[in-house]
Amino acid sequence: LALVPLASVAQSSVTLYGRVDLGLRYDSSEDASGQKYGTRMATGTNSALGFKGSEDLGGNTKVFFQLEHRLNAADGSAANPDSFFTEIAVLGISGDWGTLRMGRSDGPFWYGPGADAFYGDYVGGRGERRAGADDKFNSGVMYWTPELAGFQVLVGTTLTDRASINGVKPKHPLAATLLYKAGAFSGSLGYVKRFNEDAAIGGSASYDFGVLQAFLSAAHNDGEGLAGISTGERTTATIGAGIPVSAVASVRVKYNYDDNQDIKTQHAGLGYWYSLSKRTKLYTTASYQKTEHLKSTRALDIGLLHDF
Amino acid sequence: LALVPLASVAQSSVTLYGRVDLGLRYDSSEDASGQKYGTRMATGTNSALGFKGSEDLGGNTKVFFQLEHRLNAADGSAANPDSFFTEIAVLGISGDWGTLRMGRSDGPFWYGPGADAFYGDYVGGRGERRAGADDKFNSGVMYWTPELAGFQVLVGTTLTDRASINGVKPKHPLAATLLYKAGAFSGSLGYVKRFNEDAAIGGSASYDFGVLQAFLSAAHNDGEGLAGISTGERTTATIGAGIPVSAVASVRVKYNYDDNQDIKTQHAGLGYWYSLSKRTKLYTTASYQKTEHLKSTRALDIGLLHDF
Amino acid sequence: LALVPLASVAQSSVTLYGRVDLGLRYDSSEDASGQKYGTRMATGTNSALGFKGSEDLGGNTKVFFQLEHRLNAADGSAANPDSFFTEIAVLGISGDWGTLRMGRSDGPFWYGPGADAFYGDYVGGRGERRAGADDKFNSGVMYWTPELAGFQVLVGTTLTDRASINGVKPKHPLAATLLYKAGAFSGSLGYVKRFNEDAAIGGSASYDFGVLQAFLSAAHNDGEGLAGISTGERTTATIGAGIPVSAVASVRVKYNYDDNQDIKTQHAGLGYWYSLSKRTKLYTTASYQKTEHLKSTRALDIGLLHDF
Repeated sequence: LALVPLASVAQSSVTLYGRVDLGLRYDSSEDASGQKYGTRMATGTNSALGFKGSEDLGGNTKVFFQLEHRLNAADGSAANPDSFFTEIAVLGISGDWGTLRMGRSDGPFWYGPGADAFYGDYVGGRGERRAGADDKFNSGVMYWTPELAGFQVLVGTTLTDRASINGVKPKHPLAATLLYKAGAFSGSLGYVKRFNEDAAIGGSASYDFGVLQAFLSAAHNDGEGLAGISTGERTTATIGAGIPVSAVASVRVKYNYDDNQDIKTQHAGLGYWYSLSKRTKLYTTASYQKTEHLKSTRALDIGLLHDF
Repeated sequence: LALVPLASVAQSSVTLYGRVDLGLRYDSSEDASGQKYGTRMATGTNSALGFKGSEDLGGNTKVFFQLEHRLNAADGSAANPDSFFTEIAVLGISGDWGTLRMGRSDGPFWYGPGADAFYGDYVGGRGERRAGADDKFNSGVMYWTPELAGFQVLVGTTLTDRASINGVKPKHPLAATLLYKAGAFSGSLGYVKRFNEDAAIGGSASYDFGVLQAFLSAAHNDGEGLAGISTGERTTATIGAGIPVSAVASVRVKYNYDDNQDIKTQHAGLGYWYSLSKRTKLYTTASYQKTEHLKSTRALDIGLLHDF
Repeated sequence: LALVPLASVAQSSVTLYGRVDLGLRYDSSEDASGQKYGTRMATGTNSALGFKGSEDLGGNTKVFFQLEHRLNAADGSAANPDSFFTEIAVLGISGDWGTLRMGRSDGPFWYGPGADAFYGDYVGGRGERRAGADDKFNSGVMYWTPELAGFQVLVGTTLTDRASINGVKPKHPLAATLLYKAGAFSGSLGYVKRFNEDAAIGGSASYDFGVLQAFLSAAHNDGEGLAGISTGERTTATIGAGIPVSAVASVRVKYNYDDNQDIKTQHAGLGYWYSLSKRTKLYTTASYQKTEHLKSTRALDIGLLHDF
């Protein structure tokens, strides 16, 4: 018999992937000195560089990892200086019994109010549709059941060791989301008790009518968590649609309502996507935003997005 | 019809490349406490790790990206802690009409006074031959015409949103460079109105006589830009030559003159390159530098450079 | 004749490799406010992403490079914010005459007291078995002889330029290690004069009896270096064993004694490794630690390790 070695001679099986998205953005809002922003370079969604791979363990079981860096392609800097692989850093194992993931990633509540015409990105998408409650999970443990009759459940917590506050260890957050798919319909319902002890609930639905795909989502954060770190009571709702106009072009529209501690904001977005190829798209989106007691703002972006 | 999806399933098509360059450097100059630097490990040019790829869109058009990290291989640290992909982070599209690039890269003026025997690197190369005016472009938009009868034009600006100064938005820089190639000759002429409102002009020429390749470049920065951020009046000129001495060995020589706000520096460099293979080279370079009213300094480096 | 170009068109020949290790850790020790740590996510060994390659120069000579990033997979952050490629960043050349490495890596003393049942990792491994004297070498120059009759010698120094202290340049460290292998036996003996002028000596041995592999190592740092940066007198010793219990499972045990400036700590570790595949392992380790005049602590980890 031989010892199980502590390290293996690695046989490379890594997939490199990523995205670069850059374009121009006009924004009618003003900076601190009262000057309007000029047209500037910006990213519609985000740019990324990722490394992933998996290994078949037999018996329908596999182990997988994924490391994804987010960057500002306009200047080459990291999107998050404190976490190079800020988008995702996970190790997981999946089988007939479901999928277990450990590490950094979106928590289950991210999928709760998930359906959205713009993914919340681009100036047309702003869309805070999750009431600010979709904290990234560090040291996350997440379990996804297999899909059963269209249903799938996601549960997760984080096992971060947080410093005691007044001699009390903060509790771990807990989140659960139910996903459902049936034909042209998909929906979600999510709940999270956050690390700051705010509780949030949210849901979403989308239906593909063929001529258009409709999106609806809403979320509420109760703001009843720990004083000082609660993010306050907040309700958001979003309705949207995606409309294919040719084999390579689509229009997307969206309306978002946000009541953040009684500050009410309405946001409308319109966008057009044109596929230059399977991996490359041109887009332009526009938005109108009105927060009570403030001047309305308009924004426009036009960009090029390349997945690799 | 189907919606244009917001994200694609990426099919990996990434090329990894880079360079590690390490060696020893002796330098006769002194540190702040008056002690001579010892012989230390240093890099002659620089070390890099890059990711790039392109996709054919048909009709002679392609989209491409490039992300290049610069590192100090002697200690594994990033060359620029504020920008991981500090050398280049671009998304571009090219066709019969030319090439458009967005993101972070050298601006057109870098190519203006471009011809140089050492690329400005190595102790033998010091060569500030661009009068300090070759700022990296963040949020750059650069257009290169196709080559026509040997001529090619590069123009570019940056669309960074800079904070207002006294209620005034700084202007975007503007740069243009003309490149020309004909047989053994290549030359460039460049102009830049910098973000600090200094204006600079520069040019270069190289001619391959067969037994040697001659390099000449000169640049002037007018220093008439915004007080406080102008880099001051500066004139630089460089003459050099590269001399192949065998199928795998070359000698390079260079003389640089620099008048930086009336501080005059002369620098002479000599180097020898030996190819161990197509991708691996040994080099040694030496320099003598004299700044008016200061002691002259001598430096020597010897190193190994591996492209991958 | 053509000039040796300053840069090559790179032909990609890079191997990507790495490791993700994540699991849960229980620790009976207390934080600053006197609260026990909860069970938290932790890594048993470490997670890594590496890039390496080599080129054959003919005549049994090859040039190679290796760049390895270390990360905290639980949150995606760099293990060392000051050095992205903190584990290794080297350029080397090897031939019949041995191997020369330049850059950042473990110095020769790391291999001196090298034999260890846990590599010093995992809660079961703690094992400071090198008396704290295994400093990473930045700007290192390391030479390994070829193996001859089972013997191999490693010598190294660093060529970092350190700032003068009171007008005196610090000396470069110097380390040498002798490795020996014969059949089931392998051993090492190392010496280092550190940058702080402490001197350390250490050795190790392992023997594979078939039913178990035994490990022994010990080291002493004299603490007689420069006041203020000496790490003090320290002696460490470790004994351990690895016991294969099936074709895919092994047990490892370890006892460590550490006298660090008269603070005496004893540490015992026990671990179990189970190979799910050639590249994926489950492990659990436990430890008991007792420092004189302090409460004893117990720890337990369980994790999943995937090499790629």
